Amino acid sequence: MSNSSNTPKTSTPKAITSKTDTPKTALSEFSLIERYFKQSSTRHTHTVLGIGDDCAVSDLPSGSELVSCMDTLIIGRHFLPDTSPHAIAYKSVAVNLSDLSAMGATPYAILLGLSLPSADECWLSQFGRGIHDICREFNIELIGGDTTKSELLTISITALGTVPKGRAITRSGAKIGDTIYLGGDVGLASVALGQCRQGIDCDKSAMNYPKPQVALGQALRGIAHSMIDVSDGLAQDLGHILSQSGVGAKLYLDTLPKHPTLTPLSQQQRWQHQLNGGDDYALVFTAPKTAVLPISDTPIIAIGEIVATQGLQLFYQNSPIDLPTQGWQHF
Amino acid sequence: MSNSSNTPKTSTPKAITSKTDTPKTALSEFSLIERYFKQSSTRHTHTVLGIGDDCAVSDLPSGSELVSCMDTLIIGRHFLPDTSPHAIAYKSVAVNLSDLSAMGATPYAILLGLSLPSADECWLSQFGRGIHDICREFNIELIGGDTTKSELLTISITALGTVPKGRAITRSGAKIGDTIYLGGDVGLASVALGQCRQGIDCDKSAMNYPKPQVALGQALRGIAHSMIDVSDGLAQDLGHILSQSGVGAKLYLDTLPKHPTLTPLSQQQRWQHQLNGGDDYALVFTAPKTAVLPISDTPIIAIGEIVATQGLQLFYQNSPIDLPTQGWQHF
Repeated sequence: MSNSSNTPKTSTPKAITSKTDTPKTALSEFSLIERYFKQSSTRHTHTVLGIGDDCAVSDLPSGSELVSCMDTLIIGRHFLPDTSPHAIAYKSVAVNLSDLSAMGATPYAILLGLSLPSADECWLSQFGRGIHDICREFNIELIGGDTTKSELLTISITALGTVPKGRAITRSGAKIGDTIYLGGDVGLASVALGQCRQGIDCDKSAMNYPKPQVALGQALRGIAHSMIDVSDGLAQDLGHILSQSGVGAKLYLDTLPKHPTLTPLSQQQRWQHQLNGGDDYALVFTAPKTAVLPISDTPIIAIGEIVATQGLQLFYQNSPIDLPTQGWQHF
Repeated sequence: MSNSSNTPKTSTPKAITSKTDTPKTALSEFSLIERYFKQSSTRHTHTVLGIGDDCAVSDLPSGSELVSCMDTLIIGRHFLPDTSPHAIAYKSVAVNLSDLSAMGATPYAILLGLSLPSADECWLSQFGRGIHDICREFNIELIGGDTTKSELLTISITALGTVPKGRAITRSGAKIGDTIYLGGDVGLASVALGQCRQGIDCDKSAMNYPKPQVALGQALRGIAHSMIDVSDGLAQDLGHILSQSGVGAKLYLDTLPKHPTLTPLSQQQRWQHQLNGGDDYALVFTAPKTAVLPISDTPIIAIGEIVATQGLQLFYQNSPIDLPTQGWQHF
């Protein structure tokens, strides 16, 4: 991201560029960044050079490894078209911090790729505040990226974090006999979306302001054998741990959290939302039965165990039960 | 990016997700990644964990700093709709490597955010080869990202590199008396685009396969006082060095390279393309008059000097000349 002012001009501007479109509006990319993003950025101690050059430069603590991820969010697909710009910004960053958390990483910075139809100042101001608010909440800095014009509002975020060398928690470390834990709630975002679609007035916070389990993720370093965040549905995401660890699991449906939002639902509906609903960003992890779990603001419950038999077996009242388990399909 | 196979399913799949669309096609995100991206990725020595988990993990050399950037390319805006998938992939990575080069960084990895209308196997196969080819050419690894469905083909790339501590070359270091150098050519992509638009058969390689100056950028560590890559036009991008360094420049139009492609043009047309045409990804840098420049495959020519008087002054045959200088406007 550049924060430079306009180029000195020796005459009337007349663009010849080799890009395929040259719209003219009031705000250049540079003033956009200057006005809405640079000022809102809190400096992180790792940052040598932030917004305003070709790249950002970061000095990571010695003995640490870099943890990086990128997730893209698209209007009408990852958030409803009437979602507030503040929530869109917050959620776009949150889902990436959730990925870092699932590795046990400490986030420190983000890069923002913002593609939007027009440089609407009111929209940008709210979006900028959303970025600022989540950056301040989790002590991270917006260090770069770019803005570009696009018919379709699309936000790509790269999140950067660190872990002490060799301490990242992967999907592939689950061991037979491990207890499976859920840190956070599942099904709430899915229920809220269903209600929105039916025109029912509902609490959209689970859907629009997901809370990445940043503190819990870090606290599980050295405790969890394997971990993933629930973005695509509990069954599907736990399935990644199972396949990448070469193990199976028993999941006890009786143990799943019973948030008041889910109370009006039938048991089958509740399980469907909890097993297959994405977008809640809880953490699922496995740890030895004897592990001492960290003290956490996030409720942690044991929901199952890792077994040798491949696949995911569901149980209710100690009996096997057959339920559809399929989460989000990206294509 | 995940490389896991599908979740074990206990019954007929019936998705309930909290994302706002759930199309059904043959390829899941996971098989997409598995088939087209993971296999094409060359392992880099910095990589601890590549594609296939919530995040990638990298172990950077001690004494180095991380250099990161993100650029988004959109169909119809950054490349013509009939551009080959191979070229789209190559260019998307190249423009990001160019940003790293402009800092003097050594690239080692990319993250890919790929949003596309359908999981067309032929398209993906070619796109995957483009990613593979540029990764191999510059010894970098695709370590993560995500794929998602979007009406509008959009590619976000984050590029990661390293520099020895304190050795990044910024835009803000130009000093009065510095010579301004151009490493590479300018105006060629702009001319090619103009010809394409007029339906003239032309060499599109400058437009579709830009060559990032990766080796030159690194060779200029400790030599260049300031540097930028020419993505938005020579005049505009040099202008960023001037404003961020608090200096001005004299640019001698006589010195600009005269590539055969530009020969048929009038002098005014040539200058317009060279000053305002973007997308060539040459490097512009400043260095003391006495500096010994590195031996480079890329032609380097002196095109001007840094002066105290603010702004960009153009000269031809030692006389001031007034020309329109405005590059790419992002909004």
